Amino acid sequence: MDEKFIIKKYLKPLANSKDSMQLRDDVASINVADEKYIVSNQDSLVMGTHFFESDDPMHIAKKSLRVNLSDLISKGVTPYGYFLSLALDDTIDENWIKLFSQGLVEDQKKYKITLLGGDTVSAPHGLFITINMVSRTNDNIIKRGGACYGDNIYVTGTIGNSAIGLYLLKNKNDNIGLGQLDIQKLIRKYHLPDPRLKISHLIRKFASSSMDTTDGLINDLMTLAVSSGRKFTIKKKLIPYSISAKKFLNNYGDFDIALYGGDDYEVIFTSPKKFEEALHEYAKKLKLKITKIGNVGSLSKNPKLFDEKRKEFKGSNYTFKHFK
Amino acid sequence: MDEKFIIKKYLKPLANSKDSMQLRDDVASINVADEKYIVSNQDSLVMGTHFFESDDPMHIAKKSLRVNLSDLISKGVTPYGYFLSLALDDTIDENWIKLFSQGLVEDQKKYKITLLGGDTVSAPHGLFITINMVSRTNDNIIKRGGACYGDNIYVTGTIGNSAIGLYLLKNKNDNIGLGQLDIQKLIRKYHLPDPRLKISHLIRKFASSSMDTTDGLINDLMTLAVSSGRKFTIKKKLIPYSISAKKFLNNYGDFDIALYGGDDYEVIFTSPKKFEEALHEYAKKLKLKITKIGNVGSLSKNPKLFDEKRKEFKGSNYTFKHFK
Repeated sequence: MDEKFIIKKYLKPLANSKDSMQLRDDVASINVADEKYIVSNQDSLVMGTHFFESDDPMHIAKKSLRVNLSDLISKGVTPYGYFLSLALDDTIDENWIKLFSQGLVEDQKKYKITLLGGDTVSAPHGLFITINMVSRTNDNIIKRGGACYGDNIYVTGTIGNSAIGLYLLKNKNDNIGLGQLDIQKLIRKYHLPDPRLKISHLIRKFASSSMDTTDGLINDLMTLAVSSGRKFTIKKKLIPYSISAKKFLNNYGDFDIALYGGDDYEVIFTSPKKFEEALHEYAKKLKLKITKIGNVGSLSKNPKLFDEKRKEFKGSNYTFKHFK
Repeated sequence: MDEKFIIKKYLKPLANSKDSMQLRDDVASINVADEKYIVSNQDSLVMGTHFFESDDPMHIAKKSLRVNLSDLISKGVTPYGYFLSLALDDTIDENWIKLFSQGLVEDQKKYKITLLGGDTVSAPHGLFITINMVSRTNDNIIKRGGACYGDNIYVTGTIGNSAIGLYLLKNKNDNIGLGQLDIQKLIRKYHLPDPRLKISHLIRKFASSSMDTTDGLINDLMTLAVSSGRKFTIKKKLIPYSISAKKFLNNYGDFDIALYGGDDYEVIFTSPKKFEEALHEYAKKLKLKITKIGNVGSLSKNPKLFDEKRKEFKGSNYTFKHFK
């Protein structure tokens, strides 16, 4: 059983309102009044799956908020507040709670969000965090399924840092020729995603379809292509990497770790060609790095993703295992 | 560390919006437009704390929904839909998921609610369920802190069934003189609370303050008294018990198990005396059992709860341990 199987077979039939968008977009958009919506998403993090006992509680707090923030931002809405549920076993002491709440405080300031509610319960084993993040908006959201023929495909920021960071963390004796500064930078990206609020304005203004990248760039582009029912073509050579990641990839030799590795928390989106100039100007104004990496093709019953040589992307050893 | 300590010291300072109501009411009321609110609450259930491995997955599903429904109903709002997060270890098989989702289906029909979103993740150990239940409403909610001098105090349904059910489940060789039918009835009440949607209409129309009873009648009345900053007086002899519970209590001799035991999921509320007749007529029309058990007294810096002999209620061996 993986997550997609459970959702498709058992949970999708329960989501029978328009507001749930058939669980397709990782968020629900609840219509409250004329042109007034609450957009919410809910994600859990589990010790031993999404973080580890030795991780810094401040990082765990921030990561829990940011994976949820990333979802909302990629839909073009501005987060407002969150519900927090904590299930804790008795290994968690007050100092842990103190650091955890300090992490929440810092990110509440950074992202201008507030705690709305939730609960704290005891667990026999482990630590479980569930966040429901809420946004208020006047429009409906940018969905995954809106890409049109000829639209440009964009990605924000750079790709692969987190997956490479995880590799370096797991292979401490093998630095692939990188210096300590590069290694630290990449590992930090793994520990703590850095979604930027401003992206939501750019998405709302210019995107025809959009989602955040959590399962690896190629897998997520495939999801966007399938949701829009279209063929996508991207140019591998245009994919943006950080300087540290580029060093690693050149030495390591296999770019698949960056292409298929997860936890980037960047945004991929499509936008009509006619907006190209305005979009780049707007991104420059907001000081956001965006990169055009391809184009949306024709409708297809069997949507696929191709590279510049018309070679179809397939799975890889690095393909992010879901149900994590 | 108990839940109240963590919330007061570390989480309350993070809830700096009016919408969170300083985490006082178990729900947040998010103002979306003029006279349009989303009222939400979020509660978790953990295997080994709130339910056990041998419990029926259909019951677990229904209980997870109903503890959240109960919160919203007691605030005078009608539930609309919910987000579900599931963290599962690999002892959970497809048959479990099938039964669990069947429980959700049945209660979606019973309570006219729908699944809005959420996620499914894997856990190294255990089973964790978090539900965020959402309601759309035109008014603000009935809070805990609104009781006025002279208001009547009411409770819905009957008290103590669940705590007695748990006692009978734990003491299988000691039936306290009860027959199998009574025992089954009481145990069923422990496994599955039965909040009634219609209560929300009665609360909205007539209540000055309100909450659901989860920590034992006396503890929850105390919470209501403290929130309203007033002395409450109730008459023990007026507290409503089911026929099965009455049989148990008369044989068992100690009524504290019913007065202080948790998990009733009834509603306690206060209502102005002038509404008394209209309230009883409305309850009769809705076929809801409500019982007047006392009156609200004067403002006090040190709110207390008294019985008919002016004896103050104190803790008891049965006092529901929080942080469960």
